[in-house]
Amino acid sequence: MKNDIASYIATVGRDARESSRIIGSASSASKSEALKQIAAAVDGARAAIRDENAKDMAAAEHNGIDQPLIDRLLLNDKGIDQMIEGILQVDALKDPVGEMSDFSYRPTGIQIGKMRVPLGVIAMIYESRPNVTVDAASLSLKSGNACILRGGSEAFHSNQAIAACVTQGLVAADLPATTVQLLNTTDRAAVGELLKMHEYVDVIVPRGGKGLIERISSESRIPVIKHLDGICHVYIDADANPEMAISIAFNSKVEKLAVCNALETLLIHADVAQNVLVPLGAQLSDAGIELRGCERAQGIAPMNPATEADWGEEYLGPILSIRVVDDMAQAIAHINEYGSQHTDVIVTENYTKSRAFIAQVDSASVMVNASTQFADGFEYGLGAEVGISTDKIHARGPVGLEGLTSQKYVVFGHGEIRHR
Amino acid sequence: MKNDIASYIATVGRDARESSRIIGSASSASKSEALKQIAAAVDGARAAIRDENAKDMAAAEHNGIDQPLIDRLLLNDKGIDQMIEGILQVDALKDPVGEMSDFSYRPTGIQIGKMRVPLGVIAMIYESRPNVTVDAASLSLKSGNACILRGGSEAFHSNQAIAACVTQGLVAADLPATTVQLLNTTDRAAVGELLKMHEYVDVIVPRGGKGLIERISSESRIPVIKHLDGICHVYIDADANPEMAISIAFNSKVEKLAVCNALETLLIHADVAQNVLVPLGAQLSDAGIELRGCERAQGIAPMNPATEADWGEEYLGPILSIRVVDDMAQAIAHINEYGSQHTDVIVTENYTKSRAFIAQVDSASVMVNASTQFADGFEYGLGAEVGISTDKIHARGPVGLEGLTSQKYVVFGHGEIRHR
Repeated sequence: MKNDIASYIATVGRDARESSRIIGSASSASKSEALKQIAAAVDGARAAIRDENAKDMAAAEHNGIDQPLIDRLLLNDKGIDQMIEGILQVDALKDPVGEMSDFSYRPTGIQIGKMRVPLGVIAMIYESRPNVTVDAASLSLKSGNACILRGGSEAFHSNQAIAACVTQGLVAADLPATTVQLLNTTDRAAVGELLKMHEYVDVIVPRGGKGLIERISSESRIPVIKHLDGICHVYIDADANPEMAISIAFNSKVEKLAVCNALETLLIHADVAQNVLVPLGAQLSDAGIELRGCERAQGIAPMNPATEADWGEEYLGPILSIRVVDDMAQAIAHINEYGSQHTDVIVTENYTKSRAFIAQVDSASVMVNASTQFADGFEYGLGAEVGISTDKIHARGPVGLEGLTSQKYVVFGHGEIRHR
Repeated sequence: MKNDIASYIATVGRDARESSRIIGSASSASKSEALKQIAAAVDGARAAIRDENAKDMAAAEHNGIDQPLIDRLLLNDKGIDQMIEGILQVDALKDPVGEMSDFSYRPTGIQIGKMRVPLGVIAMIYESRPNVTVDAASLSLKSGNACILRGGSEAFHSNQAIAACVTQGLVAADLPATTVQLLNTTDRAAVGELLKMHEYVDVIVPRGGKGLIERISSESRIPVIKHLDGICHVYIDADANPEMAISIAFNSKVEKLAVCNALETLLIHADVAQNVLVPLGAQLSDAGIELRGCERAQGIAPMNPATEADWGEEYLGPILSIRVVDDMAQAIAHINEYGSQHTDVIVTENYTKSRAFIAQVDSASVMVNASTQFADGFEYGLGAEVGISTDKIHARGPVGLEGLTSQKYVVFGHGEIRHR
């Protein structure tokens, strides 16, 4: 059985590598045709997708899975509409492959510049939401990569039905069916095999809980583009517009709770803490948010005490920790120490402080006067994302088409040779 | 002893992380001042550097180390001049940190773009050449990173003398002395400890033999920017200018033999094989190069037979393998199969084939009508390089200042909140 899986995964890997050579130099028109055909195939398979999804839903309910997970699993007609819309949005993006830039002549006479190229083969390992199957397939196809998808067991039937549409679309556009391969097993051993195949897989993108991602990063011999915590901060500066500060902090926390770009710790300058925290605390409490504050914050609005552990916690739920700081330097030090380098915001009207905050906060997204909840690929104009990277090399923040490519050097010569 | 090393490396790591926050937002002027002070310190310490180098040279001779290695170890006045020149060249480069690009408004009103930022802490593990100490220190300083350097035992005294100048320059410029730290031990256990410190080290750059690099990539839990083989190809197309083809192939092989950008396998279109290979083979043989060819090549010029193993061999010496191919597709397939994705060249006058070769050869540097020997950071105008990456994510090809940085997202808002 173990051997069967190893040989199955090796075949998948070889096929992916082979397809990557074809999709990597496929024309924009042919990739666009494939995306349109995939969208049409999904549209034509609505009944089959709903039927297969119903099997997953029944199994989930039978297994007593949590309601939020069951909600994320559901694919109704609206969900299918959104998948189709997503594919067509990716199709409408500019093809990143082959983009040439920064060409200039060197004293030797050669002209040197860069060309954007696909990474090759992307393996994506993800959990329950079946729409990730279509997002990952569309983005990797558009960026000229082959991909290997390993979805979660809860969405097994839904994912297989969606992948069948992807294959159908690829074949209709005369591209290799193995450009996108969904594994036909949810055996964990398959993931172990994938992580070893450095000759066939160029990058691993895990998407799911922290346990999954930590396991993959520690096991993998292949580079991983990973997303760990989203411990996001809003710092309300002494020079903030109080109304704007309250609106941004409230929206950053409340607009959606269980997302990585939700606010987890609010930092407030002591000079405005009273003025801001009294109304904001009341609004948040009314919205059902539990507040946990430092001593000074507790003296201003009703809240529970925060412990040291709160500053490093990603609640992903209706809890907010609050700390009053003496100045911006203390806020930045707090963010760089306890944050997860995901998304951090300053609210201020002060030019100099806005510049310093941007330069000194070492996070994938740094914002002035905007809600943390904007930190995603769609809001940034990337069209869609395969995830949000909290790594520092290759790609930081939302990873869209460009994050699935890299740049090679191209040299145009006229017969130049080198004299050392 | 093992514990001593672990605690020493942990201290080095913590200090590096702390310094990285300061150097990461240091002004261009202060980084420039440090580079000038380092250059001055090296200039002032010529005698001490030569004395320490003499100790390494004596030990190397005593240990019967190979002549090429001894040559690379030597630091005479000319070598010291080159180090100083290298520091001043890095100083003259544009500061990459803080570069802001691609800002545009989104329909929500936020303006989004990117800012170039240092990676944080770079650990560099390298072998005999002591000038790498100064190159790595200058590049990481200029790019706003702290660095931890672990040089080879053969160059221990030379490296310590150079590092003392670096520290002196940093202190003179009021920057933390621990911005650049050379380990005071060459114990291999220190490398093992470094590779585990993911909270303090953001990227590892190994530079040296294949054994060293493979060990580091397989042990490291931290992203590695690595350089493996340089199996470089020149493909001489049917539409090549024969004189240019001969000149480029000869220079690519002979200009310098033991370098990663030297030609290892020559591919020639059958239509021009006779015309090109007769004179080129004679020139190469006269230059002392052993030729190993496929059957067809053996029929054209005097040479030994090549075996399958030759196509995957990085000779780094006076041997060249030669294969006659039927068309460009076969040449590209050969390169993608046997090459190391380092540097590959087509010689052709044909526009369509030049475009196809560039698009389809999946290597860090792809060239038309130029010598493979141009593939380095200095020739590409990067000023210097910490190495040449054969990886596909983050950085491909010569890694200079930009390869030691990444980009974060910056959002400028006006109080925008998100409505989902």
